[in-house]
Amino acid sequence: MGNLGVADITVTQLRRVSVSGGDVLHILKESDLEFMGFGEAYFSLVEFNAVKAWKRHMRMTLNLAMPVGRAKFVFIDDGGAIREEVIGENRYARLTVPPGIWFGFQGIYSPTSLLLNIADIPHDPKEVERRELSEFAYNWEM
Amino acid sequence: MGNLGVADITVTQLRRVSVSGGDVLHILKESDLEFMGFGEAYFSLVEFNAVKAWKRHMRMTLNLAMPVGRAKFVFIDDGGAIREEVIGENRYARLTVPPGIWFGFQGIYSPTSLLLNIADIPHDPKEVERRELSEFAYNWEM
Repeated sequence: MGNLGVADITVTQLRRVSVSGGDVLHILKESDLEFMGFGEAYFSLVEFNAVKAWKRHMRMTLNLAMPVGRAKFVFIDDGGAIREEVIGENRYARLTVPPGIWFGFQGIYSPTSLLLNIADIPHDPKEVERRELSEFAYNWEM
Repeated sequence: MGNLGVADITVTQLRRVSVSGGDVLHILKESDLEFMGFGEAYFSLVEFNAVKAWKRHMRMTLNLAMPVGRAKFVFIDDGGAIREEVIGENRYARLTVPPGIWFGFQGIYSPTSLLLNIADIPHDPKEVERRELSEFAYNWEM
């Protein structure tokens, strides 16, 4: 089986429920098609302008939500196809990223954005490949 | 079996890993003792001074983390025992709340705090009991 491509990334608009004292923001349910199991959840802070790139997971499916701030995600697959998605407060959607796709992201909100990943396996450095920022010819200038 | 009491709430200090471009904040792993299964994850915003109270879950175990802001949680059990816990950026810890305990919380950070709940069952209004704020004689004044 070949790796999945950037067309296999799912974008799911998430509900924001108006509640007195502070809204409730949906993220993920066990009954969602994009839920592949629970391995670990963690937050990543993303400073304005900072770029975190590149990583590729061999086994992990990521479910990404950004309740604070805004970031641009860039995905590159084995066929060289590139896909960009911006999520955050103004576009509150979940990105489901299957294994096998290179990705990086950039904070585009000052001072800091907050990313949640609900991953189907726990963090395991042996299933993560990394490349230097310069190894893909992508222009991150804003 | 009687309901669990406020002494059965677990506070777990969480790691914050220093990363260039933005730190990584641990939340929950499937291997953690406090992980009771994945039903649903959602965020709750908490405005400064707002009080969200009172609720009691009949079946849900909550795993609560607060990466932005600060909130005071108040728990009351069947025996009338009261327990207070403050979590947030300055005390980045996870609260694991078993079913059967009344709770409420108050934002104590301006303008807004962000709470994550990783619950072991999906939201189900039939398993939530509610009481008006005034039904417990707790003084929320700061």
